Amino acid sequence: MKGFSFELRKQDSSARLGRVTTPHGEVSTPVFMPVGTKASVKGLTPEELEAMGVEIVLANTYHLYLRPGHNLVKELGGLHRFMNWKRPILTDSGGFQVFSLCKLRKITEEGVQFSSHLDGTRYTLTPESAVEVQEALGADIIMPLDECTPFPADREYARGSMELTHRWAKRCKEAKQPNGQALFGIVQGGMYADIRRESAETLVGMGFDGYSIGGLSVGEEKGLMKEMVAATVERLPKDKPRYLMGVGTPEDLVFGVEMGIDMFDCVMPTRNARNGTLFTRHGKLVIKNAQYERDPMPVEEGCACYTCTRYSRAYLRHLFMAGEILAPRLNTIHNLFYYTSLMRSMRQAIEEGAFAGFKKRFHEERSPSELTASL
Amino acid sequence: MKGFSFELRKQDSSARLGRVTTPHGEVSTPVFMPVGTKASVKGLTPEELEAMGVEIVLANTYHLYLRPGHNLVKELGGLHRFMNWKRPILTDSGGFQVFSLCKLRKITEEGVQFSSHLDGTRYTLTPESAVEVQEALGADIIMPLDECTPFPADREYARGSMELTHRWAKRCKEAKQPNGQALFGIVQGGMYADIRRESAETLVGMGFDGYSIGGLSVGEEKGLMKEMVAATVERLPKDKPRYLMGVGTPEDLVFGVEMGIDMFDCVMPTRNARNGTLFTRHGKLVIKNAQYERDPMPVEEGCACYTCTRYSRAYLRHLFMAGEILAPRLNTIHNLFYYTSLMRSMRQAIEEGAFAGFKKRFHEERSPSELTASL
Repeated sequence: MKGFSFELRKQDSSARLGRVTTPHGEVSTPVFMPVGTKASVKGLTPEELEAMGVEIVLANTYHLYLRPGHNLVKELGGLHRFMNWKRPILTDSGGFQVFSLCKLRKITEEGVQFSSHLDGTRYTLTPESAVEVQEALGADIIMPLDECTPFPADREYARGSMELTHRWAKRCKEAKQPNGQALFGIVQGGMYADIRRESAETLVGMGFDGYSIGGLSVGEEKGLMKEMVAATVERLPKDKPRYLMGVGTPEDLVFGVEMGIDMFDCVMPTRNARNGTLFTRHGKLVIKNAQYERDPMPVEEGCACYTCTRYSRAYLRHLFMAGEILAPRLNTIHNLFYYTSLMRSMRQAIEEGAFAGFKKRFHEERSPSELTASL
Repeated sequence: MKGFSFELRKQDSSARLGRVTTPHGEVSTPVFMPVGTKASVKGLTPEELEAMGVEIVLANTYHLYLRPGHNLVKELGGLHRFMNWKRPILTDSGGFQVFSLCKLRKITEEGVQFSSHLDGTRYTLTPESAVEVQEALGADIIMPLDECTPFPADREYARGSMELTHRWAKRCKEAKQPNGQALFGIVQGGMYADIRRESAETLVGMGFDGYSIGGLSVGEEKGLMKEMVAATVERLPKDKPRYLMGVGTPEDLVFGVEMGIDMFDCVMPTRNARNGTLFTRHGKLVIKNAQYERDPMPVEEGCACYTCTRYSRAYLRHLFMAGEILAPRLNTIHNLFYYTSLMRSMRQAIEEGAFAGFKKRFHEERSPSELTASL
């Protein structure tokens, strides 16, 4: 079994072209990781993901821990075999879901107690058990348990939360088996640039296989998010991958890549697809709108995805309005194709030392009128 | 544009091997037609249907008439192009749905008035408009408006209903354009063998491209259904295809083929798939059952379908319990693969003059213990 490594292949200003190697293969970065919450990228097969160039997916430890349970997945041969995805997988620690989905949660030095959002059953996750669960699932890249600092949080809370996250990160590192899985550190620090920098420095001092930036895109202004990303990346080493968790919109991805981020994940392309919002290079298209009722055009002219090469907006609108389950599938294919194509274009631009020009065109192509279509 | 024809290629006792030729290609019979109610076989793409050997699908005039409307479909290039299905399509007349889905319906000599099950809007379907709607949709095989005789119905009602259906069939035939679409006649007659025979004879006298048997599988005993099929087919010509509408279970298909039926449709494989009931040669398997929680086996050992060659019962159960939309898709693939394989096996048995042996093995393989799993 090959281990984990990262190669920084080229840099264009701060934007980075790289390659992550894992036990289940390589990933070209910068990369967007589709979210397969419960061991399934909703509605799609592995073959469909591969056909559009997806090289890595994310699965949620919290959901799989509750159902069907990590031991069951392990018994069935691990997550790759269970969901028949042969390429790399990243699992989060479950921390974020505990903070966003569970009402009765209690944080102690030991870990976090919470009630399942499914049936109220009490569970405890500790840094050690979060690692154990992720080892049972068998992802290529795993995350330490962290406290996703709430927003807003005052300086004192943000500092205390960061320190707890560091102590938990250390315990995760100690608990981890030498099994080829990569463990990242998660930078926290709320919306305080100095605390973010301190968090990055401390985690780098401990030494992880990569560094995640957590606790962003939680309701703050875009400018504040960008400031936090900037403050963090300046203290991260060049030779390790950088993962901006839970981000984001196409604009966020372009910004993140410009700042030197290598990895992203977000439910936006998949969730929006199910809600009938489709991404195009000109902005968003809300398929249920009456203007598409008799529209013979594809979602995006010139798009090479399965959906756009076969179906009209009129048909996709019909499927959506009729509640047909082919609708979320065809919409998800288009949105993930858009996201993977966007990342591919950015990798190519970096390769050619032309990222600035790419960014300019990206913003010029976006039509203000379509952008106003709300989510 | 090629027209419609039927070739009876071989007969094994009463079981028939044939070939239906339509403007969009050929169909080997006996055939099972998956139901694509609203211009989509729920959750699947045309490529997936073709990969499992599906040669013809059915779409429902009633649903498409209400939403998105037949004129819209026509504007978008017709049903084949709208749903990107290049092979033959059969549409029903809408009559059955009016009788099964609509509460406020009124039957007159002119046609049927009904309230949409979607929003209560009043509509009228006449023999002429049912043909017009189906001409706009552009299916290869269309059905005349009929009254699906309720069950139970007394002799007098059944006879009157049959006579109305005959008058409507005549009007449909007169209204139809000479456009290459085939028009079938629909035999009614309730549960009265003599009325069924009379209906068959009358329709054959009018001359249609094929003959459907309607009004069965509506709650009657299996024995009664079989008696009605037997009474009808004895009066149908050998050189035209015979279509048993809305039937049925795997056992029904074997019986129907034995009786000389060429075409079948039923929502059972697709609807049951969405409810988690899977067909196997040993009987039904209810995937949510706890016994499959940690079961690494495929749904059916030896099954060559996409689902069985890639996924365990444990994974399918997990997807189903978690409400993942990949579940109905993978389950539907398996069930339709089972149905198309069953039909292929029967065609081969007839080809080899071995249908009796096939039927014996079919019944022997079914396990009484699994068969008791309820729908």
